[in-house]
Amino acid sequence: MSSGEHIDDLQRNNCRIIQDPERFCFGMDAVLLSGYTVVKKGETVLDLGTGTGILPILLEAKTDGAHFTGLEIQEESADMARRSVEMNSQQSKIDIVTGDIKRASEIFGPAVFDVVVSNPPYMTENHGLVNPDAPKAIARHELKCTLDDVIKQGGRVLKPNGRFYMVHRPFRLVEIFETFRRYGIEPKRMTMVHSDINKEATMVLIESIKGGKSRIKVEKPIVIYGPDGKYTDEIMNIYGY
Amino acid sequence: MSSGEHIDDLQRNNCRIIQDPERFCFGMDAVLLSGYTVVKKGETVLDLGTGTGILPILLEAKTDGAHFTGLEIQEESADMARRSVEMNSQQSKIDIVTGDIKRASEIFGPAVFDVVVSNPPYMTENHGLVNPDAPKAIARHELKCTLDDVIKQGGRVLKPNGRFYMVHRPFRLVEIFETFRRYGIEPKRMTMVHSDINKEATMVLIESIKGGKSRIKVEKPIVIYGPDGKYTDEIMNIYGY
Repeated sequence: MSSGEHIDDLQRNNCRIIQDPERFCFGMDAVLLSGYTVVKKGETVLDLGTGTGILPILLEAKTDGAHFTGLEIQEESADMARRSVEMNSQQSKIDIVTGDIKRASEIFGPAVFDVVVSNPPYMTENHGLVNPDAPKAIARHELKCTLDDVIKQGGRVLKPNGRFYMVHRPFRLVEIFETFRRYGIEPKRMTMVHSDINKEATMVLIESIKGGKSRIKVEKPIVIYGPDGKYTDEIMNIYGY
Repeated sequence: MSSGEHIDDLQRNNCRIIQDPERFCFGMDAVLLSGYTVVKKGETVLDLGTGTGILPILLEAKTDGAHFTGLEIQEESADMARRSVEMNSQQSKIDIVTGDIKRASEIFGPAVFDVVVSNPPYMTENHGLVNPDAPKAIARHELKCTLDDVIKQGGRVLKPNGRFYMVHRPFRLVEIFETFRRYGIEPKRMTMVHSDINKEATMVLIESIKGGKSRIKVEKPIVIYGPDGKYTDEIMNIYGY
């Protein structure tokens, strides 16, 4: 363990994860995406921008997928992810690859994964960033890759009819739909996430299918906090409590 | 009154509307759109495909808009709309024009309205229709105009920064966003409508702005029925009870 790191219990198959609050810790968006993603028995999964590996670690624990790969540009984060995978004895099912999302299809080849997942940087505005090399800035802002890069590369590495699961901010929804369509991946299912049922949506979960026909289902919203200010049963269930 | 017609109370400023169940009656979608649409004092409004005039009649009663125009291709529906406007003494504020949505910008000229509203036909599949000339079929299916026609013409008759309010079915959301963007009208605000909070969305309300910047707000959902199976307070309020 390096200084500043700590180990968090993931409440799922005794899985744990090494994180460093000075760098970046996973949030509810990653947990919700792990609950939203469908991985069928024997399928292969790629996480574009895996950070400390939260998505492959949770998906390996939750599903019957055959193999999970996490791609991460920051070596320090990838190293933490690899150590978490070893700590959980998930080495035979999870590979963490250090590399650039913009080169994903060169690294892995075309049409090789059944499922792609991504919790990409949300923010386009990079001006005014005090330290654009900081790990948190890279995870949150489109400094190393854009939405277009993530969707273009995800589309290339997906098999025909492969599924792309993404969590993002609703304010970019029009651009997200347009970008998926540009690369022949059709948004098919969407869930809005509201912290409070009486407030605007703060997150959106989207399932898109490579080569899918135009028709989307907008499912019942996910609500994070109930009227009592506590997590709703749905959130407690996703977290595995 | 022609045979088959009846008069319905709109629960708003004593307004009433003439309808014929054999032809087409307005539904909750039109009422929700009238509650969602913002018309500021002195603004001019065009309803593309007004049917029996429910939207101009309700918007005249609910807002301080200066003038409301309803465009309708079916003469019998337009005639009912005109008689309803007279019955409500709204002739000085509402014009009902018989004409084709596809020719709206020729009829009214470019960039003349502050606000466009539309509750267009939802269904693309026209095969298997027993009677494609039936008024109900024309109101529900894209027989006389497509989504592209409605948005293209709405964009042309809107002033710069004019607002376009539409109610539609969520399953076409990706296509709706793409079409608005194609004509330089940016979706800026969206509300999903769920009949039950635990079921998928059945309607979507969208505000788009001609020449707007890319950023959309996904507002709290509207729920039609509460756990007791009765209309929620929000719906009762929109209906004006």
